[in-house]
Amino acid sequence: MATDIAVWERDAFARSIGIELIETEPGRAVVAMTLTLNHLNGVGTAHGGALFSLADFAFAVASNSRGLVAVALNTTISFVKAVSEGRLTATAREESLSPRIGVYAVEVKDEKGELVALFQGTAYRKKPRPV
Amino acid sequence: MATDIAVWERDAFARSIGIELIETEPGRAVVAMTLTLNHLNGVGTAHGGALFSLADFAFAVASNSRGLVAVALNTTISFVKAVSEGRLTATAREESLSPRIGVYAVEVKDEKGELVALFQGTAYRKKPRPV
Amino acid sequence: MATDIAVWERDAFARSIGIELIETEPGRAVVAMTLTLNHLNGVGTAHGGALFSLADFAFAVASNSRGLVAVALNTTISFVKAVSEGRLTATAREESLSPRIGVYAVEVKDEKGELVALFQGTAYRKKPRPV
Amino acid sequence: MATDIAVWERDAFARSIGIELIETEPGRAVVAMTLTLNHLNGVGTAHGGALFSLADFAFAVASNSRGLVAVALNTTISFVKAVSEGRLTATAREESLSPRIGVYAVEVKDEKGELVALFQGTAYRKKPRPV
Repeated sequence: MATDIAVWERDAFARSIGIELIETEPGRAVVAMTLTLNHLNGVGTAHGGALFSLADFAFAVASNSRGLVAVALNTTISFVKAVSEGRLTATAREESLSPRIGVYAVEVKDEKGELVALFQGTAYRKKPRPV
Repeated sequence: MATDIAVWERDAFARSIGIELIETEPGRAVVAMTLTLNHLNGVGTAHGGALFSLADFAFAVASNSRGLVAVALNTTISFVKAVSEGRLTATAREESLSPRIGVYAVEVKDEKGELVALFQGTAYRKKPRPV
Repeated sequence: MATDIAVWERDAFARSIGIELIETEPGRAVVAMTLTLNHLNGVGTAHGGALFSLADFAFAVASNSRGLVAVALNTTISFVKAVSEGRLTATAREESLSPRIGVYAVEVKDEKGELVALFQGTAYRKKPRPV
Repeated sequence: MATDIAVWERDAFARSIGIELIETEPGRAVVAMTLTLNHLNGVGTAHGGALFSLADFAFAVASNSRGLVAVALNTTISFVKAVSEGRLTATAREESLSPRIGVYAVEVKDEKGELVALFQGTAYRKKPRPV
């Protein structure tokens, strides 16, 4: 049913800031974004909101890859390295899945493979509506 | 020295997604964003990344309002209400300030004053460089 | 039905480390703990686990004060002041409540009323089992 | 200088609730705790405070394994599986280390190796005092 692809294709915000879906399989997603001047904050490094949006999109695709609509309840992000240019990749992996709740860890890395941000997210999986 | 204004004026990402600085004083900031189609995710509600970016910008302005450059170490956001349109406001208040660390709480609310997201952020305050 | 009192009375861990329930009403709870040598860490200040347990118990009582069993999904705590002695109080307030999810903020303060830790928690409210 | 061992040996709270240090090396720590009735909450499962304390102690040992005193700034924990008995293990690994800040991920698992809680922590590394 490809819920994950649909989520991505319809995600205007992710597309508007240049996020691309690279690959996905059940419980996992890889997304990427090439930094431009529009992603920078007042001190010339990638904005926390841009890094979060990249991680959050990987989380959204991974958590919606299981056939139920999943919505984010809570997310945490630690910023560990300032970056100003280049291509960033975010990889989400499923740490836990129960009928109603999924927990995901996301790593954002730069082109050298160094960690830029570490993200943890909890999603609520909605029951399908009766037809 | 108006570090806070400077941070805002030079913040390309915040401006590019439509975030406005409403007011700021030491330890506090209010910012706003009017939702457009470009802020929406695949299910037609405000993207977590857009809500985070709004809250994070309030946090950035408040934490940079004390004369030292402050960088985000860690932030947490809970999403509590889905919204699709209208104007959102984020208010950051300082919960704690020590020489090197500041902790801030941010509430994102809709036009009715209802809570949309609750955010908590920890910032590291850099020592000024010797001239 | 006093779910909150029941939760407290049966909570062996909270009692074993000296946490007391001070007061509760729907969506709110105040708990306290007097620091002893057993609450200290290797550098002689209150252990993060002790501070967390105090905040978490206020969160548990407040989130269980609405007639449904609520379980913690995710919590975040920022430690802002080291303390070594005296009585600590944690106050939980409900920031948001939906049928399945509640979000709470908890402040841990010392006897001077100064903030020691800031906590944010998301709880999942279970559906009552059919009798 | 074995700061990590010292931190453990002097940690009254960790010992008082039955936490044991299993192994540690620079940037990593494994700790364990066998659940007793005193670790349970009002619904008969391991208390969030007990699970947090276990994870937090792994984080403390790992972040203090580098020769500087490290204090917790912020931690997040997601609770993913309720457990009532048996031995729990928490493994902390360093995700990032800079001169002043370390970021750690901790997994708490049960005897079957299933994830019970997922923890992320940010520590501030103090400058050594001049002698």
